[in-house]
Amino acid sequence: MVDSLDLNILQLLQEDGSLTFTRIARKLRLNESTVRKRVMALREKGVIKKFTVIIEPSKVGFNTVAIIGVDVDPPKLLDVAQKLCDIPETRYVATSTGDHMIMTEIWARDGKELSKTISEKIGKIEGVNKICPAIILEKLKV
Amino acid sequence: MVDSLDLNILQLLQEDGSLTFTRIARKLRLNESTVRKRVMALREKGVIKKFTVIIEPSKVGFNTVAIIGVDVDPPKLLDVAQKLCDIPETRYVATSTGDHMIMTEIWARDGKELSKTISEKIGKIEGVNKICPAIILEKLKV
Amino acid sequence: MVDSLDLNILQLLQEDGSLTFTRIARKLRLNESTVRKRVMALREKGVIKKFTVIIEPSKVGFNTVAIIGVDVDPPKLLDVAQKLCDIPETRYVATSTGDHMIMTEIWARDGKELSKTISEKIGKIEGVNKICPAIILEKLKV
Amino acid sequence: MVDSLDLNILQLLQEDGSLTFTRIARKLRLNESTVRKRVMALREKGVIKKFTVIIEPSKVGFNTVAIIGVDVDPPKLLDVAQKLCDIPETRYVATSTGDHMIMTEIWARDGKELSKTISEKIGKIEGVNKICPAIILEKLKV
Amino acid sequence: MVDSLDLNILQLLQEDGSLTFTRIARKLRLNESTVRKRVMALREKGVIKKFTVIIEPSKVGFNTVAIIGVDVDPPKLLDVAQKLCDIPETRYVATSTGDHMIMTEIWARDGKELSKTISEKIGKIEGVNKICPAIILEKLKV
Amino acid sequence: MVDSLDLNILQLLQEDGSLTFTRIARKLRLNESTVRKRVMALREKGVIKKFTVIIEPSKVGFNTVAIIGVDVDPPKLLDVAQKLCDIPETRYVATSTGDHMIMTEIWARDGKELSKTISEKIGKIEGVNKICPAIILEKLKV
Amino acid sequence: MVDSLDLNILQLLQEDGSLTFTRIARKLRLNESTVRKRVMALREKGVIKKFTVIIEPSKVGFNTVAIIGVDVDPPKLLDVAQKLCDIPETRYVATSTGDHMIMTEIWARDGKELSKTISEKIGKIEGVNKICPAIILEKLKV
Amino acid sequence: MVDSLDLNILQLLQEDGSLTFTRIARKLRLNESTVRKRVMALREKGVIKKFTVIIEPSKVGFNTVAIIGVDVDPPKLLDVAQKLCDIPETRYVATSTGDHMIMTEIWARDGKELSKTISEKIGKIEGVNKICPAIILEKLKV
Repeated sequence: MVDSLDLNILQLLQEDGSLTFTRIARKLRLNESTVRKRVMALREKGVIKKFTVIIEPSKVGFNTVAIIGVDVDPPKLLDVAQKLCDIPETRYVATSTGDHMIMTEIWARDGKELSKTISEKIGKIEGVNKICPAIILEKLKV
Repeated sequence: MVDSLDLNILQLLQEDGSLTFTRIARKLRLNESTVRKRVMALREKGVIKKFTVIIEPSKVGFNTVAIIGVDVDPPKLLDVAQKLCDIPETRYVATSTGDHMIMTEIWARDGKELSKTISEKIGKIEGVNKICPAIILEKLKV
Repeated sequence: MVDSLDLNILQLLQEDGSLTFTRIARKLRLNESTVRKRVMALREKGVIKKFTVIIEPSKVGFNTVAIIGVDVDPPKLLDVAQKLCDIPETRYVATSTGDHMIMTEIWARDGKELSKTISEKIGKIEGVNKICPAIILEKLKV
Repeated sequence: MVDSLDLNILQLLQEDGSLTFTRIARKLRLNESTVRKRVMALREKGVIKKFTVIIEPSKVGFNTVAIIGVDVDPPKLLDVAQKLCDIPETRYVATSTGDHMIMTEIWARDGKELSKTISEKIGKIEGVNKICPAIILEKLKV
Repeated sequence: MVDSLDLNILQLLQEDGSLTFTRIARKLRLNESTVRKRVMALREKGVIKKFTVIIEPSKVGFNTVAIIGVDVDPPKLLDVAQKLCDIPETRYVATSTGDHMIMTEIWARDGKELSKTISEKIGKIEGVNKICPAIILEKLKV
Repeated sequence: MVDSLDLNILQLLQEDGSLTFTRIARKLRLNESTVRKRVMALREKGVIKKFTVIIEPSKVGFNTVAIIGVDVDPPKLLDVAQKLCDIPETRYVATSTGDHMIMTEIWARDGKELSKTISEKIGKIEGVNKICPAIILEKLKV
Repeated sequence: MVDSLDLNILQLLQEDGSLTFTRIARKLRLNESTVRKRVMALREKGVIKKFTVIIEPSKVGFNTVAIIGVDVDPPKLLDVAQKLCDIPETRYVATSTGDHMIMTEIWARDGKELSKTISEKIGKIEGVNKICPAIILEKLKV
Repeated sequence: MVDSLDLNILQLLQEDGSLTFTRIARKLRLNESTVRKRVMALREKGVIKKFTVIIEPSKVGFNTVAIIGVDVDPPKLLDVAQKLCDIPETRYVATSTGDHMIMTEIWARDGKELSKTISEKIGKIEGVNKICPAIILEKLKV
C-alpha cells in the first residue's frame, strides 16, 4: 500500500500532472530524488496507471459526448468489454452493477456520427444485445 | 479550432502526459520550440483542461468506486451540480440526458463509507431527491 | 368528416404545402375553384391546423434537439402543459400515456443551453417534478 | 449558415406557410424579389426541408395517435429506421438517446388497427425486438 | 370452503350469469331447489360477490379505456384506494405488488376526457404522487 | 349506438345482473316487454358481452391472484394473445400500451402453482420473451 | 482474519448449526477443545453473527413473503434503515445499490395484512417516499 | 400447523440457535423432553428447514456481496432456478414477482471476482438472458 507521503504526491499530480519533480519536492519540503523515486515506484506498482491530459471535446470538434450503457449476453460479458476497449472511439470502458453491465464513453462529431458508431462498431460486437446512450450535457468537474 | 499538428500532439499527451517537449518533438519530427508553443496555446485556449495522473483506486485503499445518478428538483439542477463539485469525495460531475440528470463518481473505502457519503454529504444538498449508485466492478480502459 | 377528395388534397399538401391551387387542381383533374373552396373549408373546420415549413435545426444553429418527458403533480397536469406551450423554446407539447405524462420538444444551441432551459424555464413551472430529456440523434422522416 | 433576415422569414413561414412572397415582403419591409431569392436559397441549402400542412388526426378519422419506441438489434439500427420510413403509416421517424433508440409516430383509426400495424407491419421488420407504444392524449402545441 | 358441486355451479354462472336455476339444475342433473339453495349460500358467504353484465365500452361511447397505475404516499395507501373506489369513473380498484401499488381502470370518451379525469379527479386525491395510464388496445378475453 | 334508456338498464344490470325484467321495469317505470326487447337488442348488438358472476378467488381456494405483463416478439403479438385466451387459467387477456403489450390475469392456489403456470403454460407459448407478474394484494372495487 | 481450519468449521456449521463440538471435531479429525475454542473465538470476533434456525414461513401461517424495496429521502437513509430494523415484522434489512437503496423482507399472513404493514408501519416512518414489494413465489435455496 | 408453544420455541431458536433443550425448557417453564420432542417434530414437518450460523462475509474475505436479479427464458424458469442452487457461490435462490423472476445472493472477494462469477458461472446457464446485480452496502438486520 501507499503511505501519507505518497498520497500527498498523488494529490499534487492529480491536480497538475505537469509539475516537475523539483516543484513537487519544494511544495512538500522533500528533496528531488525522493520525489523521483516515489513517483517511479508508484508507476511500477500500478498505483499511477498513466500520466495524461484532460481535453475539452468540443474544442477538438467532438460536439456529442455520450455515456453508453451496453447490455450483453451474460456469458460474453468480459469478451464484449475487452472488444470495446479495442475500438478507438471508446474513451472509457468499465463493468458495473448499474442498469447496464458495461458502461463506455464515446466522443462523436454529432448525433449522426454517434448513431453510426453505435450501429456499425459497438452494435456489431457479438454478444451485444442493447445499447443505451446518455448524452453528457456539460462536464463540470473532471 | 485545432489543426492536425495539434491533434497529433494531443494524442501523444493523452497516451503519456509525462512526455517532455523534446520527446514529442522527436516523435513528430518538429523542433522543440514549436511543440512548447503549441502546448501552451492548447492550454490557454482551454483545449487541454489539465495535466493529471490516472490512479488505481484499490491501490490507495478505495475498494468501492461508484457512479452515482442524482435526481434533483428541476429548478435546482445547476445549483446541485455546482455543490457536488465542491464535495471533495466527488471525482467527476456531469449533467446528462440519461436516467438521471446528474452523474457523479465517488471513491469510498467500503460500502459502509459509501452509504455514509450518500446520506450525509450528497443527500444533504438541498434539491436532491433520489440517489442511485452503481458500483464499478472493474475499469478496463481509462 | 372529410371525403376522399379532401383526403387527396390533404395528401398533396402534406407532401408539398407550397403547391398552388392551380397545380393541385391539375394533378387531381379538378377545377381550381373547387380546390380553393375545399382547402378553405378544411381550414375552417380545423382539419388543416396550419400551413408551415419544416426546418433542419442544425442549419439554423440548433445542434441539440431534445424530446423531453415531464413528470408533474397529477392535479397540475393541464396547467403545466399550458405553461409549457407559452415557453417560446418548446416546439411541440402533448399529453401522453407513456413513461411521462407530458412530452415536449426543445431546440437548443448546445448541451449547456439545454441544461439552462431545463433548469431555468421548464423546471421553474410550478408542479413540475422531474424532467427526462432524450436527445434526437437524427430525424429520418418528418 | 443563415443571417437574421433569413431567420425572420423562417419564423413567418413556420407560423403560416401559406404566406405569399408579397405578404412576407410587406411585413418585413423588403421587396418581393429579395424574399423569393431568400426562400429559394433556404430550400436549396436544406434549411427548409419542406412546406407542409399540420392536420388534426381525429378530424380525418384517426382516433388513436401513438408515439412508438422501437428497440432494435444494435447493428440493424439504421436499417430498421430506414424501413420504418418506408411504411406509409409512419408520420415521423427519428433515432434518439432515450429509453428506445428509435421513435416513430403512427396514426390509427382505433386501438385494434394500432395493434395490427404494430404486429403486422413494424413487428415484421427484421431486427425489431420490442415495441413500446405511448398514446398521445392531446396535442396542445404543434 | 366450497365443494365440487358449488364449483360446477360457479363455472356455469361465470360463463352465463343469466342462466335460470332450472337450466342449471338440468345441466348438472340436480333438482332446482338444490341449485337455488346453493346459489343463495354462495352469495351469503361472499363467494359470489355479485351478478353483473360485461359491457363493450366502445359500444356505449367509451373509446379510451385505461388501466392506471397510481403511486401514493405509503402511509396513505389504503386511504387513496378507498377514495378511488368512490369516484364513479373507476370500474376496478386493487392494491398490487407491481410497478405501482394501486391499479384502477377508467373508461373515458376520448383522450381529452381521460386527461381531465386524471388531473381533476384522481390527481386531486391527497396522497397521490404519480399517475401512469396504459391504454387498453383490445380486450380479447373477459 | 345506445340511448339513455339503454344506459339506465345497463347501469342496473352492472350493479345486479340477477335482476328480473319485471324488477328493472318497475324501477325504471317501463313495461316489462320493453325491458326484455331492449336487453335482447343489447346482447345481439354486442353491447352486453355476457352475463356473469364476480367470484372472490380466496373463497374458492385461489390465494395468489396475479396480473401478468407479457412481452412478446412483436410480429407474434396477436398470436400470443389468442393462445393466452385458450389457456383455462387466464381470466382476462388484453393488449395494451403499458410497460407490457399484453396483460393477463391468473388465479393460482399459491406461489408455487403460479411459478409452474408461468413457466410451463404461458412461458411455453412461442413468441413469449418475458413474463412480469404483479400480485394483487386486495381487490377493493370490481 | 480466519484460517482454513476456521473455514472448515464455518462450512459445517452453516450446513448444520446444531452439530455438537464433538461431532465437528470427529469430522475434521480435531480434538473437541480445539473446536470449542475456535467457535468461541469466531463468535467473539463477529465472524459468526448468530446461530439461528431457518423456518418455512408457510408452515407457521405466513403465506405472503415479500422482499420490499424502500425509497427514502437521501439524508434519512441510515435513519430509516435503523427504524426498519426496529419493526418486528422485518426479517432482514440491508442498504443496497440496486433499484432501491433499502431492501427489507416481510412475512405476512396474506396480501391484506401485507398492505396494512406497508401502509401503517413502513409507510409511516419519516423519510420513506416509495415502497415496492416483490412477492417471493418460492425459496429454493437458503 | 403449529401451536403457540411451538411458536415460542421457534422464536427462541431464531434468536439463538445454539440454545440447549435444557435452556429452552427453563425459559419456557417446560420440561426438557417436551422441548426435545417439539423441536424434533418441527424438523420432521419441515417447519424448521435447518439450523445454521449467520456469518459476516467481510470477515471471511468476501468484500462484495450482491443480490442478483436473473431474467430467464420463461419456459426455463424452474430449470435455471434449480441450476443456480447447484452453483456453490449462490447463498440464496428464490423465484419472485419483482423486476426479475429469480433473485440470488452471491459472495465474492471483490468486483473482479463477481464479474467472473456472473459471466462464467451464472451467465453460462442455458436460458439466462440478463443478469442485474445490486451490491449490498451494509446488512443491518439478519
